[in-house]
Parts: sequence; C-alpha cells; structure tokens
Amino acid sequence: MEADRIPHHPDVRTITLQRVLEAVVDPVRRSIVTQLCDASGDIACGGFDLPVSKSTATHHFRILREAGLIRQYYAGTSRMNALRRDEIDEVFPGLLDAIVTAERPASDAERATAG
Amino acid sequence: MEADRIPHHPDVRTITLQRVLEAVVDPVRRSIVTQLCDASGDIACGGFDLPVSKSTATHHFRILREAGLIRQYYAGTSRMNALRRDEIDEVFPGLLDAIVTAERPASDAERATAG
Repeated sequence: MEADRIPHHPDVRTITLQRVLEAVVDPVRRSIVTQLCDASGDIACGGFDLPVSKSTATHHFRILREAGLIRQYYAGTSRMNALRRDEIDEVFPGLLDAIVTAERPASDAERATAG
Repeated sequence: MEADRIPHHPDVRTITLQRVLEAVVDPVRRSIVTQLCDASGDIACGGFDLPVSKSTATHHFRILREAGLIRQYYAGTSRMNALRRDEIDEVFPGLLDAIVTAERPASDAERATAG
C-alpha cells in the first residue's frame, strides 16, 4: 500500500530546537539541508552530492526527517526530499537562514568585500 | 603572573560553524549563552543558574571559550564571562539571535499571540 511507504513525519508543533541542532551539527546533514536550500526544487535521495555511502546517507535522511527538517515522499520509485522551510521558519525564525548562510564558503564573502 | 591566568581565546577569523554548533547543541551550554544574552553585563562563573556541578560547569565554559562564543577574564578572584556577540554576529550573521530566540519558552510566543 502506498501509505505504508510514506515514513512518519513529526508535527511542526512538536519539533524541538534540541532535535534540530542535533540534526544540523553533523556536516553531512548540514550539507543536505544546504543543497535543498540552494536547489530550485525537491531532490531525490540519489541526487545529492554527499561523501558517504548510500546506506549512511539513508541514515542521515532519517535523522533529518525525524527532527522535522525534511519531508520525504515517493515519486514513482524515487524517494524525494523537501525542506520543511516555511514550517521551520515559523517555529524557529531565522535559524535555517543563519545556518545555511554560515555554511557557505567564507571565500564567497571575502570575494564580495575584497577590492 | 596575571597573563598566565587568562586562558587562550581563538581569533574570530578561525571560529568555525562546526565548533559553534557543537558548543550550542548542549542544553547547558545553550543556557549559558542565553543567560549571557539576557543579562545586562558579564557574569561570573558562579553567577549562572545551571543544573550541573561547579566542575561540570567549568568544562562547559571551556568548550564555549574554545569555540569562540565567550571571552573569559578575571575581576579580582572571580572569573568573568562575556558573550563575544559582535564578533560572532560578524562571522555568522543572525545565528546567535536565532538560537536564543528559539531557546526561549514557546509559551512566551503563545501568550503573545493568544486572545
């Protein structure tokens, strides 16, 4: 049944800062969040640029989903990942933006102000 | 010698997002940062409201200092703690604000919007 394939997602009202920080403290998970922020749409599990095996990536997707940061759904046989940006912004204003901005290479900012 | 009592502090340009997140992922350390944000001045090590022993608190202060989040100095025999707010804001805009805002009890926001 289709419903069985859709994993559990926490309600936005139960998302805690502790779980969100435990999720983004890992550099691979932070990279997933940053790639979703920078993408024009949702990304299939196999579509990320990650330095880990597929099974390790699956573990990181699960942590992010359980922390409330991403929503997963199926498109055919692909498991897709969407950032729950609006919901996170509502409960933790500015947090995702600050982390994604900080995550971008410092050289970007240095180039922008050099001169 | 006085200089020997002043512990090492990292240069703001060497502070990494990874170290900052590893520091604030701990709820006791997040509480120290929040209390410093909410205070009108610096706070002595013994002046925080923390649910841990003095030696455990000392460990947390060290992690925060090494991550670049706080500056420690002596006032007589008291070791004082100052949040390096301006420096952190410069390298990671919005991050401290977002974390401290998220850390405050949800009931504050609920009361504000209730009725």
